[in-house]
Amino acid sequence: MDEFSLINRFFKSIPHQRKDVVFGIGDDAACLEIPDGMQLLVSCDTLVENVHFLGEWDAYDIACKAVMVNVSDIAAMGGTPCWLTLALTLPELNQQWLQRFSQGLHDSLSHYNIALIGGDTTRGPLSMTLTIHGMAPKGTALRRSAAVPGDKIYVSGELGGAALAVANLTRQDIDEHDRARLMQKLLHPVPRIDLGPYLRTYANAAIDISDGLSADLNHICEESQVGACLFLQNIPVHPLIKKYHGDNALDFALSGGDDYELCFTVAPQHEEQLLMSIKQQGLSCYPIGMIEKQLGLRAKRIDGDIVPLEVLGYRHFS
Amino acid sequence: MDEFSLINRFFKSIPHQRKDVVFGIGDDAACLEIPDGMQLLVSCDTLVENVHFLGEWDAYDIACKAVMVNVSDIAAMGGTPCWLTLALTLPELNQQWLQRFSQGLHDSLSHYNIALIGGDTTRGPLSMTLTIHGMAPKGTALRRSAAVPGDKIYVSGELGGAALAVANLTRQDIDEHDRARLMQKLLHPVPRIDLGPYLRTYANAAIDISDGLSADLNHICEESQVGACLFLQNIPVHPLIKKYHGDNALDFALSGGDDYELCFTVAPQHEEQLLMSIKQQGLSCYPIGMIEKQLGLRAKRIDGDIVPLEVLGYRHFS
Repeated sequence: MDEFSLINRFFKSIPHQRKDVVFGIGDDAACLEIPDGMQLLVSCDTLVENVHFLGEWDAYDIACKAVMVNVSDIAAMGGTPCWLTLALTLPELNQQWLQRFSQGLHDSLSHYNIALIGGDTTRGPLSMTLTIHGMAPKGTALRRSAAVPGDKIYVSGELGGAALAVANLTRQDIDEHDRARLMQKLLHPVPRIDLGPYLRTYANAAIDISDGLSADLNHICEESQVGACLFLQNIPVHPLIKKYHGDNALDFALSGGDDYELCFTVAPQHEEQLLMSIKQQGLSCYPIGMIEKQLGLRAKRIDGDIVPLEVLGYRHFS
Repeated sequence: MDEFSLINRFFKSIPHQRKDVVFGIGDDAACLEIPDGMQLLVSCDTLVENVHFLGEWDAYDIACKAVMVNVSDIAAMGGTPCWLTLALTLPELNQQWLQRFSQGLHDSLSHYNIALIGGDTTRGPLSMTLTIHGMAPKGTALRRSAAVPGDKIYVSGELGGAALAVANLTRQDIDEHDRARLMQKLLHPVPRIDLGPYLRTYANAAIDISDGLSADLNHICEESQVGACLFLQNIPVHPLIKKYHGDNALDFALSGGDDYELCFTVAPQHEEQLLMSIKQQGLSCYPIGMIEKQLGLRAKRIDGDIVPLEVLGYRHFS
C-alpha cells in the first residue's frame, strides 16, 4: 500500500455534512466557502511522540486528543470549528494503527461536524500537525489582548486533572477507577465550544489552558498590558488532586497543563448576563480573580495575604 | 530563551502588508477576512529532515523550499497565496539556525506578499508542516478532475533539473557552475503563480509536478477518469540532463520530482487564447500530449510507436 492508497483508504473516506466544502481531499488544495459576515479563524498544533503523547497509547486516543487540542484553540476565540488539515508523519505503514487512528479522527470530527479537508503523509518519526479552521461572526472573536483592569477572571472548569494523570502514569497505588477517570481527562479533553456564543457576546478576553493556569493567564496579562490577582481559595481544583496530592494540590491547578478549560475575563457590567446565560444552558464557571492595572501576577492566599505568583507552565525549550 | 521568546524574536517580527489579516500571530488563532466572491484554498505539506531536505543545508534554503513547495499547491489551483501557518519541530534551540531560517522565511513570504499568521514550535526531530491559504474567484479553482478527452496536455517548463540535482549530490565530476545551477532548481523552485490568471480562465485541469510528470499526470487521469498519451519528443528535458545523463534523460523528466512546474490540460477551443495570453506576458509552455478516453498512460515514441508508460514517481511508503 503506497501513500495514495493510504490516504484513500483511511482518510478520504471520513464523511462530513458541510456544504461550505466546495471540494476537500484529493486535489492540490481544498476549496472552501466563508459566508458573508463571518471571519475565518486558523490555528495549528503539533503533537510529537514522547513529548505530547506516548507511542504506546491507543492510536484512537492520540487522534482524539490531537483534534480536541486544536478545537480548543477555536473555543478560546469563541468560534465554531469547521475544517481540519492533518499532516501525519509515520515511521512505518502499520494498518492496525492507522485503522484505530482514523476511527478516533472520524469520531472526534463527527462530534463537532468538522470536515477533514486535506493533509499530507510522510515517513519519519511519529508526529502530527493539525491545522484547524473555524468561524466567528465579524468582530466577535475573543482576543488575549482585550482584558481590562476591573474585569473578573473566570475559569470554565476544574483544573489539574490532566497534570495529575501525567504525574501518576507510572504510580502503582492509584485506585483503578480513579486512574481511568484521570486518563479520560488527559486523553479526551473536552474543548469548551459550548461556551462560545456566550463568551463572544459578554466576555472581554479568553485563552484555553494548555500550558497551565498561571502561564496562560500571564499570556492574557502580557498581551493586554495588565496584571492579575488570583483568589487561591476560589480556584476549582480537580477533586482527585486533593485525594492524591493534598499538600500541593494548588500547584497542580496553577501550573498543570493539558486541561483545555477556558480562562476568560468579563467586565463587571456583563457579569450577571453572562452567568445567567451560562446557567440557562446547564453550564457553570468559576470566578477566580481580578484583572488589575498593576502588571504581574499575584495571589491572594486564604489568610488574606497577597503574594507574587510565580509563572510556571510547560516550556518546550527550557 | 523559551518557546515564547523564540516565537517573538524570530517569527512574530516578520512583517506583512495584508489588510485581510484582522490579527495574526500571538493569539489562540489568527483571524482573517475573505472578500465577497472569493473562495478559500487550503493545502499543507510536511518536510522531514533526510526525507525532503538534508540537515546540512543552509536553513535559509530549507525555509525557502518549504514555502515554495506549499505556494506551488496554490499555483496548481490557479490561485493567489495569502497566509501561512508554520509548525516547526526542532531538536534544539540553535539561534544561528533560526536566524537563517527566519530570514529565508521572510524573503520567500515577502516575494509573494504572504502573511505568516500562526504556528507552533515543539521539540523533536527536525521537521516542519506548512499550511498555505490562498484565494481564487468563486468557481475558478482548477481541479485535477476536470480533464476531458481531446484536451491538449501542457507543462509550464523544463523537467528533471531537481531530480538531476539529487542524483548528483555526491557526484564529483560535475562542473561547479552546473552544480550551482542544479542546486538552485532543487533548493529554490519557482512556483508558477504567474500562470494563475490565464490557467483559471482557459485551462481545464492542473496539477503541480512534485512527484514526477508521469505520477502527477496519472493523478489527473485517475481523478478525471480519462487516459493520456505523451509525445516523448516534445517533453522539455532540462538541458543539463542531456549533458550528464544523455542515455536516460527522459527518465529524469518523466519520473523526477521536485520541479514544481505545472502540468495542465486545455480544450482545443481555448488553446489559442491561452497561448496568446501567456506569450503576451513573456511566459511560455510546452505541449506534450493529449488527454484520451482510453484509460491509462501511453507514450508516443520518436519512431511513432505508442507504448504503455510506466507510472514512476516518489513514494513515501513503497
